[in-house]
Formats: sequence, structure tokens, C-alpha cells
Amino acid sequence: MITTLELTEGLEGRILTDSADLVRYSSDASRAIPEGLPLAVLTARTTQDVAAGVRWAARNNIRVSVRGAGTGLAGGAVAYPQGLVISLAEMDTILSIDPGNRLAEVQAGVITADVDAAAAEYGLMYAPDPASYRQSTIGGNIATNAGGLRCVKYGVTTDSVAGLEVVLATGEIIRTGSKTRKNVVGYDLTSLFVGSEGTLGIVTGATVRLKPRPAGTAVTFRATFPSAAAAGRAVTAIINSPVVPDVLELMDRASVEIVERFHPTGLSTAGAAILVGQFISLSSEEDAAVASRICQEAGASSVEQAEGDVLLEARRVSGKALDARGLRASCDVAVPIARLAEMFEALEEISADENVAIPTFAHAGDGNLHPSVVIADESAEAYTAAERILDLITDRALSLGGTISGEHGVGSLKFGSLAKQLDPATRAAHLRIKHAFDPQGILTPGRGV
Amino acid sequence: MITTLELTEGLEGRILTDSADLVRYSSDASRAIPEGLPLAVLTARTTQDVAAGVRWAARNNIRVSVRGAGTGLAGGAVAYPQGLVISLAEMDTILSIDPGNRLAEVQAGVITADVDAAAAEYGLMYAPDPASYRQSTIGGNIATNAGGLRCVKYGVTTDSVAGLEVVLATGEIIRTGSKTRKNVVGYDLTSLFVGSEGTLGIVTGATVRLKPRPAGTAVTFRATFPSAAAAGRAVTAIINSPVVPDVLELMDRASVEIVERFHPTGLSTAGAAILVGQFISLSSEEDAAVASRICQEAGASSVEQAEGDVLLEARRVSGKALDARGLRASCDVAVPIARLAEMFEALEEISADENVAIPTFAHAGDGNLHPSVVIADESAEAYTAAERILDLITDRALSLGGTISGEHGVGSLKFGSLAKQLDPATRAAHLRIKHAFDPQGILTPGRGV
Repeated sequence: MITTLELTEGLEGRILTDSADLVRYSSDASRAIPEGLPLAVLTARTTQDVAAGVRWAARNNIRVSVRGAGTGLAGGAVAYPQGLVISLAEMDTILSIDPGNRLAEVQAGVITADVDAAAAEYGLMYAPDPASYRQSTIGGNIATNAGGLRCVKYGVTTDSVAGLEVVLATGEIIRTGSKTRKNVVGYDLTSLFVGSEGTLGIVTGATVRLKPRPAGTAVTFRATFPSAAAAGRAVTAIINSPVVPDVLELMDRASVEIVERFHPTGLSTAGAAILVGQFISLSSEEDAAVASRICQEAGASSVEQAEGDVLLEARRVSGKALDARGLRASCDVAVPIARLAEMFEALEEISADENVAIPTFAHAGDGNLHPSVVIADESAEAYTAAERILDLITDRALSLGGTISGEHGVGSLKFGSLAKQLDPATRAAHLRIKHAFDPQGILTPGRGV
Repeated sequence: MITTLELTEGLEGRILTDSADLVRYSSDASRAIPEGLPLAVLTARTTQDVAAGVRWAARNNIRVSVRGAGTGLAGGAVAYPQGLVISLAEMDTILSIDPGNRLAEVQAGVITADVDAAAAEYGLMYAPDPASYRQSTIGGNIATNAGGLRCVKYGVTTDSVAGLEVVLATGEIIRTGSKTRKNVVGYDLTSLFVGSEGTLGIVTGATVRLKPRPAGTAVTFRATFPSAAAAGRAVTAIINSPVVPDVLELMDRASVEIVERFHPTGLSTAGAAILVGQFISLSSEEDAAVASRICQEAGASSVEQAEGDVLLEARRVSGKALDARGLRASCDVAVPIARLAEMFEALEEISADENVAIPTFAHAGDGNLHPSVVIADESAEAYTAAERILDLITDRALSLGGTISGEHGVGSLKFGSLAKQLDPATRAAHLRIKHAFDPQGILTPGRGV
């Protein structure tokens, strides 16, 4: 029988085995349910702690899951029965800010909003801002290549990562990337590890790229549309216009109602969907006017400027608002930007055919949608019914040239759907890499790829 | 004895074995010298041709080198003795332009400037523009993750690649990436293959991202500096200012003289270095004024607006101008943008210590420098002497936190220097991937990683 005695040596005070702790560290924010409790939780404080944990797991053939703040929505951080959870939440130091090179070095457990706040002291920002950015860690964002509201302008997490520190399955520590703007020495291991969901190694630290905070006033507008498809057409046209929004989010009527019930902001929609756009630049008034005109041409019933913080806050609390409504099943599809209206039409069709509400939030400017289905109760039947609707949605996104995950990751929840998107030869290419880095299959096995 | 008879079956008319052809396809534009002639050249017309060639090579354990236009500067496309050269130059079809999603599908052998020209018909552009972009192929650009003049604003090749078609060492064909703006399904194989220099698979096609052509007038300025280091300080300050140049190139006096002798454009430098900046936006006059003021503050002796095409053309012909001056040994280092002035000081120091001219062109806004040493003659001694100078330069770049290659690739020329930049564990991680994709070691072995 495997005990955690050997693990504890050298890691005194960092190994949790109390059942209350084990339970607490077992789930993430997704609907994935742990199949059993882990043997132990390692609350790592250093990269060496992580390496020690991994070496112990390798020697004992123990499956390892990695956890930041536990805000993941794809089940990637759920514990394995008799497994080891490595928590990086205490590795939360911002090691340096280098304004001359616009870089920050951070440990994986730093809260994403804290990196942004530290950069702000130099007039800089860390751009990727998932809705969870005040809770989620940069390591978790890196593991899933998280998107966010500002990503329509600044790109997703991978576009802001210059280099990584990674603990491999052997316990070896490697460093990827470079502090230069250009570097073609060796393979792009940095991009390989970003989005790899803990399956190739454990990201313990990162050098992230900072951007200047945009100069100019924020101008925010809200456009109301008679159908989500019309809003989708407006989004496609805005993205293909000369103006580049800082934020371009869509909420359909059902999702606005859910948010307003949870956190009243005065948002209301007479129409079927609202689009919230924000511009921050020296020409934000002109840019917003261009986008507003496009909305009107696409059939908006009204377009008005509004207080940006309120609108964006409504979007940011959407996850919690959905949770408060009951058990939530949501997905994370993305479609090519020109197919957005078709995807909204597909959602309407599925909703009508199946007689089920599908409230949808979307990082519309990125073609990334989060349709949700409220699960009736905690019964297995209710879950299965919800999953069936999500499968219908996913299939439609794929048929439009889309993807089964835009930003949440594959995790355990979408693992079974991988073959829908990746043909066998391409899937096999992924697995070659997995086996090269983790031949024993101890790092987040059965998830991600 | 291996013959090419079996290779010819099904590939009639596409296999060259005449010695004149073998010689012609053996070298690239670098100073790397082929060690012997290949067995054959496959001038592929389809992806299936490439797969057939690779399968034949695998069966016979033949080393494969891949060639686009042969403009590479790192020796990556040089033939192996008794090897197979796969030329993609005839796979030169632009398959589609999709303006609604700002994507183009192209075969690997398309000339990069032709992609840009085809996009221009839709008001779009393919941004990466290596100095060779009127000769080099998109496949070659992808193999080395090429940079270019516009990359200071739009990013390097990898930032413009959405997906790839790749022939693996087994002859299998895979497709990476997605047409969506966001996709986190599986590993980022696209970024892995970009810059992999033919060592993991052969890129036969790509889906590339297009950008809107910038609106507004181009405003170009030329600033003259008393030292290259002062120009470097100006570049650091411009990159850290609110304005984003479309082009920011530096030429020292020696390189201006070399260009003017080859292709007189009326450029002259009373000072030690000139900086050429271009802005194309609705606020280009204002932006250029900001950059000009920064140059003056950094000690520029003169800053004047100038005819942009002439200045950029001078930069684009620099490679040919160096070639015309005799055998050229150049390198491709990059440093963090805040260390640029120090790198120019290092070059001056090496030049003085070694009593050798080191004309230097730089994609300065990216911190990427191309210092060159003129080789006295074709003797082995002359080459060795030049390589020693380049090694001194490379070491200084590394000591400033830089890289041994910013955009040309490692190829064969820098293969021996890899260990200077990558520690053993990180290098081993690269080789895990190489072995996973090419266990037999037939794809561009001994180069790249």
C-alpha cells in the first residue's frame, strides 16, 4: 500500500491528508464530479516542492492533477482517486516587473488581476482577462490558454507569454522562451505548454508580456437587437471594419435576465440580444460611432452610449449568476467570425426543437460562445439530458468550421468529444507528444488530449 | 545500392537526377557548403507527391532536406550527400482567400509577396515581409518563423499562421489549427511546426491570417545619429512610447555605404547610423512627430521626413548588396529591446578590438540585428576567421539575455551553438519531440534542434 509518508519528507507542513482538505481540493468550478478522494494534496511553495511531488508520484505511479484557484470549467483540475493534487495557489509571488522590456516574471499561483494591477503601476497592463481574472491564477490561465474580454484586441493568453518554467514528469525543470521579441532557436515549447492543461508538465512560473495601457477615454456602447443572429452579423461586420474594439461582448435576453436577478445593474433588453462594445483610444468616440453605425445597419433597434464599468461588470459576474440559478451546464464553442449569425440561428433552432432555454454569453468579437443549459436537478438523468443539448450545440459549431473549446480547455468534460474535431492522424500526432513527455501517463491523464 | 528507380514510380517527370540539377538544388543562400550531391530532387506538385517522397526516404533510410526558393541564410535547405531534396517551389497555388474570416489558404511554395498581393485585392494584407519576400516562399518563412520589416507592428510569421497541412516522417498527412480566432483543443501543433525547420514534418500548406491594410498616409522619417548606440537608445524609447511604428529599421554607416554602392538611392550618412521609421495610420503625422522628438532627445543630429519607398527599398536590397561585396558571413542575433544600445556598443568594441568592419542592419524595433563580416577570400582560413568574429558577437548577445537567432533559424550554421542558449534539460525536451516525430532521423537531421 502506498502511503504519503515518503512524500512528507522534506515537504513538512505542505502535505494535506485530512479528509476535509481532500474534499475541498477535489473539485473545480465545473460540473465534473470527482470519482474519489486523492491520497494527498501538496500545497507547493517552490518549484522544487513541485519537482519533489512529481518525482514521488512517478516512483509510485500516482496520477497527478494540478490546481490553481480551482476556477476551471472543463474539469481539468478535478482530483484523481488515490491521486496527488499539486496546488500552486501558494506560489503567488510576482518576482519582477521589467518595464523597459515590458515583461513580468511571476509564479504560477499569482492571481491574474494582481499581475495586471502590478503592471498598472508602470502604466502597463497584463491584457488577458478571463471573466474569473480576480479569482483565477495565471498558471491556470496558461494551462487552458484562457481568453477574456480584452482578448478581442490583445489576443489570448498565449499571445502574452514570453517564456515558462516547467517541471517535467521526470522532475526535471526546464525554461522555455526568451526575453527577446523574436527568437527562433529550437521549437516553440512555450506555445506547446500553453494550453496543454497539465498533460506535458507543470507550469510553475512564467515570463509574461505587458502592454501599454491604452491612452484615451473609454467609450462604451450598448446595442439592442431583435435577434441574436442580427447581433452576430453586426459583430462580423465590426471585426471586418477598420476599428478594433477593446471589448465586444454579446448577451442574449435570457442571460441578461439571469445576471440582473443576481446582480441588478439596470440592464434590460427589450430585444433578443444586446451587444456591448468598448473602445479605448485617442479616437474612441469616432471608433464607437463607426461601430454604432454598423449596428444600426445590421438592424439594431437602439444604440446608446452607457457607463462601461456597469456593463462589463454584468458580463464578469455571469458565471456566478449562472451558478446561482442552479446547476449549470455550459459549453465553450467558437466559430469562424463570419459564421457567427449562423451559430446563433442554430442555437435558436435547437432551443425551439428541444424546448429548452439556452442562455448565451459570447466573447462575440472572437466568435467564442458560452451557451448554457440549466440542469433541472442533481440526478444523473438531468445531467445526461443537459449534456445531450450541449452535444447538439457542439456539433453545430463544428459543422460551421468551429471548435469544441475556445478558451476553457478540453479537460475531462470534452475529452470524449476530441475525435469529433481531430482526425485520427492529427490526434495521434498529439499523443506522440504526450507520450514523449509523460510515457508513464501520470500527468493529468485521460484529459486534455 | 539505393537507386531512385522506385522513387520515380508514380512521380514521373518530378524526379531530377541530372548532375546539373543536383548541383543547382544543393545550396541555399547561406555560406553553408553542401558536403556532397543528393541522390535526387523531387519537385513536388501535390501533398501526395511529398508523402510519397518521404515514404521512399523512410524505407531506404535516406536523409531529406526541404527547399522552397532557396533563400535561407542558415543552411537549413542544403542537400545531404546521397540524400533526397524535396522542392516545394512548384506547389505555388493560392487556394482561396476568405475575406470574411480574413484567412487565405495557400500551398507552401507560394511566394510570400504573392500572398500579400492577392490579399490586397480585398483590402487585406499578409503582414510578415522578410527582406526576401519577393523571392522566398511562405513555406520557407514558416519553416524559420521569418520576421520582416512590418513585424515590429504585426508580429512574426507564427502570429499570422492559423493552421498547417504537414506531411509527417511516416508519410501521414495531418492538419493543425483552426479557422476560429480562438481554439484550445489539443496542443498548439501549429506553433510547434512553425519554426521547426523541417525537422518534425514537411509543411505543405497553410491557412494564414490576413490583416486589414492600414488606412491613412505613410509618413517616413530618417534620423541620423552620432553613434549606433544612440540610435539604439532611441529605438528602445520609441518602442516603449505610446506610438507603434509600422517599420523601424537601423543601418549603420558601413551598411549604408554597401547598399549605396550596389543600388544608389541617395542615402548618405554623415553620422554613424541612420534609423528609418514609418507610420501608416490616421494619425501618422502625429505619431511620426512623437518618434522624431524621441530621436532628437536621444541625440540625433538630424531628423527629416523622406520618401518611404526609397528608404525601405534600400533596406530590402541589403542582402544582395552584401553578396555583391564578396562572400558574406552574417548573423541574426536578437536582444531584449532595452539592451539594444549595449549590443551596439558591444559591436563597436569587437570591431575595434579585432580591427574588422562589422556592417550591421537591424530590424531595430524588434531588437533583431544582422551584423556581417566580409570574408577576405574563399579559403578555409578566411571562413574560420569570420566565424570567430560572429561567435564573439553571438556570445555578447547571449550575455545580454538575447538569442542566437531572431528570424533566420538555426539551420546547420548555428547548430553547434545551440548548447550556448539551451541548457541540457531544455535541449533534451526539444529532442524528445524530435524523436517522437522522426525516430529514424531522416527529416533535416543534425540541423535546427
